[in-house]
Amino acid sequence: MTSSEARSAESTTLPVIDQLIDYTADGMEAVNQLLLSRVGSHVEMVPEISNYLISAGGKRLRPMLTVASAMMFEPEGNNHISYAAAVEFMHTATLLHDDVVDESDKRRGRDAPRKIWGNAASVLVGDFLLGQAFMMMVEAGDLEALGILSRSAAIIAEGEVFQLSKANDLNTKVEDYFEVIKAKTAALFEAATEVGAIAGGASAEQREALKLYGAELGIAFQLVDDVLDYGGLTGTIGKNVGDDLREGKMTLPILHALANAPKEEADFIRKYLGDQEATQDTVERVVAALKECGALKATLDRAYEHAARARDALSPLPQTDVTKLFAEIADYCVERAA
Amino acid sequence: MTSSEARSAESTTLPVIDQLIDYTADGMEAVNQLLLSRVGSHVEMVPEISNYLISAGGKRLRPMLTVASAMMFEPEGNNHISYAAAVEFMHTATLLHDDVVDESDKRRGRDAPRKIWGNAASVLVGDFLLGQAFMMMVEAGDLEALGILSRSAAIIAEGEVFQLSKANDLNTKVEDYFEVIKAKTAALFEAATEVGAIAGGASAEQREALKLYGAELGIAFQLVDDVLDYGGLTGTIGKNVGDDLREGKMTLPILHALANAPKEEADFIRKYLGDQEATQDTVERVVAALKECGALKATLDRAYEHAARARDALSPLPQTDVTKLFAEIADYCVERAA
Repeated sequence: MTSSEARSAESTTLPVIDQLIDYTADGMEAVNQLLLSRVGSHVEMVPEISNYLISAGGKRLRPMLTVASAMMFEPEGNNHISYAAAVEFMHTATLLHDDVVDESDKRRGRDAPRKIWGNAASVLVGDFLLGQAFMMMVEAGDLEALGILSRSAAIIAEGEVFQLSKANDLNTKVEDYFEVIKAKTAALFEAATEVGAIAGGASAEQREALKLYGAELGIAFQLVDDVLDYGGLTGTIGKNVGDDLREGKMTLPILHALANAPKEEADFIRKYLGDQEATQDTVERVVAALKECGALKATLDRAYEHAARARDALSPLPQTDVTKLFAEIADYCVERAA
Repeated sequence: MTSSEARSAESTTLPVIDQLIDYTADGMEAVNQLLLSRVGSHVEMVPEISNYLISAGGKRLRPMLTVASAMMFEPEGNNHISYAAAVEFMHTATLLHDDVVDESDKRRGRDAPRKIWGNAASVLVGDFLLGQAFMMMVEAGDLEALGILSRSAAIIAEGEVFQLSKANDLNTKVEDYFEVIKAKTAALFEAATEVGAIAGGASAEQREALKLYGAELGIAFQLVDDVLDYGGLTGTIGKNVGDDLREGKMTLPILHALANAPKEEADFIRKYLGDQEATQDTVERVVAALKECGALKATLDRAYEHAARARDALSPLPQTDVTKLFAEIADYCVERAA
């Protein structure tokens, strides 16, 4: 039995994400209030665009990780709330800019803000949210946490530029791919858990453990996202499926297929990689090829490996219910694609 | 004699900008080294785009103001260098994003980065530079200075969204215009001088004086920019002249003309405001109308008022050569359009 089969067999467990939502409910209510208070502006597009995204039903996994990481210890004051809100603003700013960069039409199942308010407003409101994120961090007053979040902002952007420079690049290596996802996704997960640990007053060892947990979880999360972009292991071909293909993104499923699929199928993928006009039929054939050569499953197996590393990272922490929940969250992040 | 005539009569004075360049040469050399060291990345587009803009011959007025503000006192260590570099990175990030927002083809007389590397890279490298700016500020370790710069980042973005929302809006008021330029331009000048004062160890009163100087100088600077966009008082119609017209920007020359020009000319301006295809002939007629009704001169007079306020703001400072230089810089900023 492979690791992914083993996980699927467990899919009757309780929805752990709801447990995390319950556990962090009070803190996240405070985070919500803070977010709302911080997007206030007489410039109407600022709260309009911000609230459109903030209320769009994302799970808010990142700020929940910050709050829960702090709650593993004894957070004093409200720094964990400020940090969680800053993390969510940074994430929201990234979404706004990513949609412009990728020319995406959809975000969280609705029109992307750039389709409604335009690219210009998306860029600028993203900048505003980034500025607000740093203001909140400054008000919290911890230079170490500030350094972590500002560094992650630079790393995320650098990773996205790297990804852009590798678009349609058939010489992209698997290491390049992992470098991209560590930067563009794992860096913020890592920062989210680490600043939570700082706010909670964790020891150096515990902080390092939570930081590593966040980093590994983030890698697993992005691997799964890249599988979901092709519909997941069993998924149907939804509206957004194939976006990565059309954008020429050299994700692991593609890299695996180019190396392992029969020549005819690999040639077909090469031909349509980066073709913004690729039809539904083309995408379906690519998805079939990815499944056939085991590319989606191989990617998901890598996700399970990183989820396992995330769980292992938790061992220096007090083995409480919330630590157990964190372990289960790692599996949950992968199972959504299995 | 009006204030602008009075100033023109003085235009034989030495080039004060060169005096400022001389005065801050050592500090700015250190700033340059820091900027170069901070754009290093194996992701080639990051240093390519950054250096393209950083080396593009902008005068670097903002970081020079930071360095010179600190040098009025006794800067300890290198915080004023870090702050100046952070200010320059914030400015560069703003330029990158502005060109995307305005769909500009030219920047500092050369192709805009977005024409060479695309919108996506411009957005992302801007984000990277913003992240680096905050990292440098964090390393300097002064929370107060960090708060000032992060607040200005949010204010700049909010001001740009406000400007965007007012594009082509014939109901825009003169107060709206001043709100926009205070946010999008004066906020960074104000932050540049204030963080310089902090790094220099200025007293609260001196810091407030330099902050006010920066704010007023920034307002004057933008008023002049908005005159230069229509060629200045005596200017010829260069390549970029009329950009604001085509983008529908409700700058003071336009607001003045809509209120004061003969109906036929005001109607002509209204007709072509926001017309991206407006021809050279159209722009020339608009420029003629702006001159005829005194719109450019009225705008420049407002710039002289704010330059005078900037000079007045300097009174609590030690009356040294550099303070005198700051006073002359205020005039210099206006004279470039006279």
